[in-house]
Amino acid sequence: MGDVLYNHVRMINKKPVRIYAPIGSYENLLPYLVRRLLENGANSSFIHQLLDDSYAINEVVKDPLKYLIDSGLKSNPKIDLPQNIFRPYRDNSSGVDINNLSSQMKLQQNVIPYLSCYFNASSIVAGKCLDSNNRIEIRSPYDPEKIIGKVAWSNEDDVKMAFKSAVNFKESWIQTPIKTKSKMASDLANLIEENKHELIALNIMEAGKTFSDSIDEIREAIDFCRFYASEVMQMEQDFPTLFNDKITYKYQGKGICVCISPWNFPIAIFIGQIVAALVTGNCVIAKPAPQTSVIAFKLGKLILEAGFPEHAFHLLLGDGVSLGNKIIEQNNIDQIVFTGSTQTALHIRDKIAQVETNMIDIIAETGGLNVMVVDSTALLEQAAIDIIHSAFYSAGQRCSALRVLYIQEDIYQKLIDLIIGATMLLKVGSPEQMNTDIGPVIDKQAQNMLLTHIERMKKLGKIIYEQEQFNNEGQFVYPTIVKLDSINELTHEIFGPVLHVISYKPNSLGHIIEDINNQGYGLTLGIQTRNHILANYLEKNIKVGNTYINRNQVGAVVESQPFGGMGKSGTGPKAGGPLYLKELSKKNINL
Amino acid sequence: MGDVLYNHVRMINKKPVRIYAPIGSYENLLPYLVRRLLENGANSSFIHQLLDDSYAINEVVKDPLKYLIDSGLKSNPKIDLPQNIFRPYRDNSSGVDINNLSSQMKLQQNVIPYLSCYFNASSIVAGKCLDSNNRIEIRSPYDPEKIIGKVAWSNEDDVKMAFKSAVNFKESWIQTPIKTKSKMASDLANLIEENKHELIALNIMEAGKTFSDSIDEIREAIDFCRFYASEVMQMEQDFPTLFNDKITYKYQGKGICVCISPWNFPIAIFIGQIVAALVTGNCVIAKPAPQTSVIAFKLGKLILEAGFPEHAFHLLLGDGVSLGNKIIEQNNIDQIVFTGSTQTALHIRDKIAQVETNMIDIIAETGGLNVMVVDSTALLEQAAIDIIHSAFYSAGQRCSALRVLYIQEDIYQKLIDLIIGATMLLKVGSPEQMNTDIGPVIDKQAQNMLLTHIERMKKLGKIIYEQEQFNNEGQFVYPTIVKLDSINELTHEIFGPVLHVISYKPNSLGHIIEDINNQGYGLTLGIQTRNHILANYLEKNIKVGNTYINRNQVGAVVESQPFGGMGKSGTGPKAGGPLYLKELSKKNINL
Repeated sequence: MGDVLYNHVRMINKKPVRIYAPIGSYENLLPYLVRRLLENGANSSFIHQLLDDSYAINEVVKDPLKYLIDSGLKSNPKIDLPQNIFRPYRDNSSGVDINNLSSQMKLQQNVIPYLSCYFNASSIVAGKCLDSNNRIEIRSPYDPEKIIGKVAWSNEDDVKMAFKSAVNFKESWIQTPIKTKSKMASDLANLIEENKHELIALNIMEAGKTFSDSIDEIREAIDFCRFYASEVMQMEQDFPTLFNDKITYKYQGKGICVCISPWNFPIAIFIGQIVAALVTGNCVIAKPAPQTSVIAFKLGKLILEAGFPEHAFHLLLGDGVSLGNKIIEQNNIDQIVFTGSTQTALHIRDKIAQVETNMIDIIAETGGLNVMVVDSTALLEQAAIDIIHSAFYSAGQRCSALRVLYIQEDIYQKLIDLIIGATMLLKVGSPEQMNTDIGPVIDKQAQNMLLTHIERMKKLGKIIYEQEQFNNEGQFVYPTIVKLDSINELTHEIFGPVLHVISYKPNSLGHIIEDINNQGYGLTLGIQTRNHILANYLEKNIKVGNTYINRNQVGAVVESQPFGGMGKSGTGPKAGGPLYLKELSKKNINL
Repeated sequence: MGDVLYNHVRMINKKPVRIYAPIGSYENLLPYLVRRLLENGANSSFIHQLLDDSYAINEVVKDPLKYLIDSGLKSNPKIDLPQNIFRPYRDNSSGVDINNLSSQMKLQQNVIPYLSCYFNASSIVAGKCLDSNNRIEIRSPYDPEKIIGKVAWSNEDDVKMAFKSAVNFKESWIQTPIKTKSKMASDLANLIEENKHELIALNIMEAGKTFSDSIDEIREAIDFCRFYASEVMQMEQDFPTLFNDKITYKYQGKGICVCISPWNFPIAIFIGQIVAALVTGNCVIAKPAPQTSVIAFKLGKLILEAGFPEHAFHLLLGDGVSLGNKIIEQNNIDQIVFTGSTQTALHIRDKIAQVETNMIDIIAETGGLNVMVVDSTALLEQAAIDIIHSAFYSAGQRCSALRVLYIQEDIYQKLIDLIIGATMLLKVGSPEQMNTDIGPVIDKQAQNMLLTHIERMKKLGKIIYEQEQFNNEGQFVYPTIVKLDSINELTHEIFGPVLHVISYKPNSLGHIIEDINNQGYGLTLGIQTRNHILANYLEKNIKVGNTYINRNQVGAVVESQPFGGMGKSGTGPKAGGPLYLKELSKKNINL
């Protein structure tokens, strides 16, 4: 059958024809064969047409390319193009296909010039860049020789000046029309898009993030701006009043909002917090992580360029603990938005209880001990890819990242082999290289904490895989896999490319769920299974904010996957979700 | 003219006819005359008809009562009866017209039997009434000889048992259909209605509240039940998702909710907090103020009778500080709802920061230094009534009560004379008497604090009126008026029938607004003026939760006037408003 067809097609089309012959073990070929049988059983299948005498041979062997062109390459008008999927509310952010060589090279060309620039950064208070005596040199986390620039750290006077300016302006900002604020947020989205090459370069150099992570992060920041710009415009219509007794429910800013953001998403989380607070009518005092001060300074200038008033937005750069404490000691805070470690969130809560005489609202997005469960029905090849992506990409420095992988004992060895095989291929190195999979961890301190953990696990004989280390410069941690017996062996979040695996018996799932919930964290959960009853059972009983089934468990998209945890992982509401702006608005208002 | 008409009407109708002759000073008669002239100028007026020859005299002097009966006593179908004004969502609570002698007497007959009963109260944990060795005798605040009953106070074991039961049950309660929970809340409303006579008697005896206040409070409790029952049914429809990517936004209880309620609204606030927490799917640990333990016990039994599960609702009775601390030290709290003093709210916040390892949400409704502003255009007779009502009724023991009255200097003396005149007529005494205007303050401690404040003001020569004291038994504080120069002379809330007055110059309003806002409280504001520009200006610039214009500033009605303050007066959301149930629901959920 093959020969006859082959010769006939080659004769008619005068084109090279390929023979496609799948080769593999019985285990892999059997499901392949089943799929082919199903496909070929269809009435429209090639085999059916070939054996049907009423079909002319010319019809069977017609040139598929010519057929497609003749039929006009129609696209389905009911399937929106990616740009338009959120319309009429807003535009989707545009991406870069870095698997396409020509767009990859174009991107690189645009980013490279910035990789050798020297940057000066400082606090911005009331529109002015503030110099100081306390100037810190910034070096990249992947190359201690690489100096990126200098940051002037702020002092107590700067903090007071920022609060004074914000307090005086807060009424005017509340009274500014929502439409004006929304327009500024949309304009900021466009400015970030225009400045994306410089921002990618800064994210690579200062945060050590890869090209791919940087593009994703910039898209997230743009989506935050546009989503909140759109949401705020729809907020005031929510509550029609039953009686017109001079009672109107409107949303209004709370006053002064302190935004404390982390270094692991120095663009997206920084922008998301601030834009949400600004569009709802709050004056913002922003305190980004000191590790990513240069990025924050660049973004701070864009925020002002977008039109947000210089008295409504102030950027304070400096050391986390001492600057953070100085800020909390001010007596005019109405709201704190914090993303970072659980420990720091509790410190802020305690500090506030000591120094503030008002009850202050805190939104905290914190850490997690995130779990994935893979049962014996899962598609292991896909699971392996999702596991690698969730545990090791971004050097494991996402709060959503996979920390503890539960594998059903029946498929344990097979999946581990796949994971180790895939991990061996991961390239750790400078994020300036486009083919780098895993960049550095953020600083020496982070590296030391991770290496200490790995060392301890090594002494306990629990390491089952550790990538060979070829680069001793820079703050690299190589992907490591640790075998545990129970999640209780971990007492805190391990914020880096270390995956812990546990083999489980199906009848112990009840205990495992209890163990996971008892940890007290509740951020993300991954489930890999083709048994939907199990998926529903796990989803319902493991208490987390975001569950992902048969996909990786990182990279929540604004609006599509509102993101946030419960318990020790955060207070809610979910960022990029419908409750976020309402939480930043006064709940008792009289207008 | 009068004589001829008088004789004619008397002759035809054979009925007594009254001559109506207004008498008064020029100042009062002039506006009266103007109103009459306006009325008589109308075409349909009596004078017009009398002088119009085409009107038969029989028509002019026809019997008005007969005319009404003949025309069928029609009511306007577009004006709903009070019972129906909140339909189709819910029924309005029914009131009692105590100005109508027959309904007044009927009410008294129904309440009186309970006023001589002896009540036993105790904590209720997992459906069981718990006895204890620590039994406290309860005496009424208006008569130290009157023993109401005994309360068994709970110990640490009871607290632990309540938490254990609630923790074990919380998942089941979350999974219970919303419709079932809503039905229980509606049933509770009906049970409160059925038990209202006993509740009025308890409110009189234990809380020292008048008949009138007790009726209002029971109506509020019923409205809370029905409003929240209706609201919760509509919550899940709020957020349609754009994509069906296995993300559903649903509302769900947070887990364990501690409800701490005050003695000044032992029925309405107690019920409002608990029902809101229960219908949203939280298990409730209720700790009412110790002063009103018997009422809480009665209501607790009704809550269980309405069908709320015995593991979802637990009542703990005991001393405020020691029991409160024991409760907060439990490590399973997800939400605290507190109504009481600002000081206690901050104590709870601090205590939580010391003992809890999670961030716990707190809703706090606290005190206020509430202000009313009366300008020279106000209708002073009406203002005086509203002032008396806001400052002295309920013995000034409402968080919304008027504390500081600003009177424009031009009308200062005239309004003060009216206020003092009206205050002299107020009857202070036992709330068992229906004609009592002002009952006792809650306890010896409250009385002493108020008397100390009055004593201090007396020494400073600031008292301008003090009602004569005729009863030295019971914890009475007689209505007192204090003249101040500035609100800054008060450093805290004065929770009793003490009104502070300040005379202001119109050009100093800017400073006054600043003074008021700088106090940091922001609960209620009263404005009395016929100048709507001034009203809008004050409403916009004085930062409070609830503003009332040309009426008293107490007695917010559920749904019509959602109630709650800002700053030191509370965190929001407003009770009885559209945001309340959402605040009690998880904000990060995965279902």
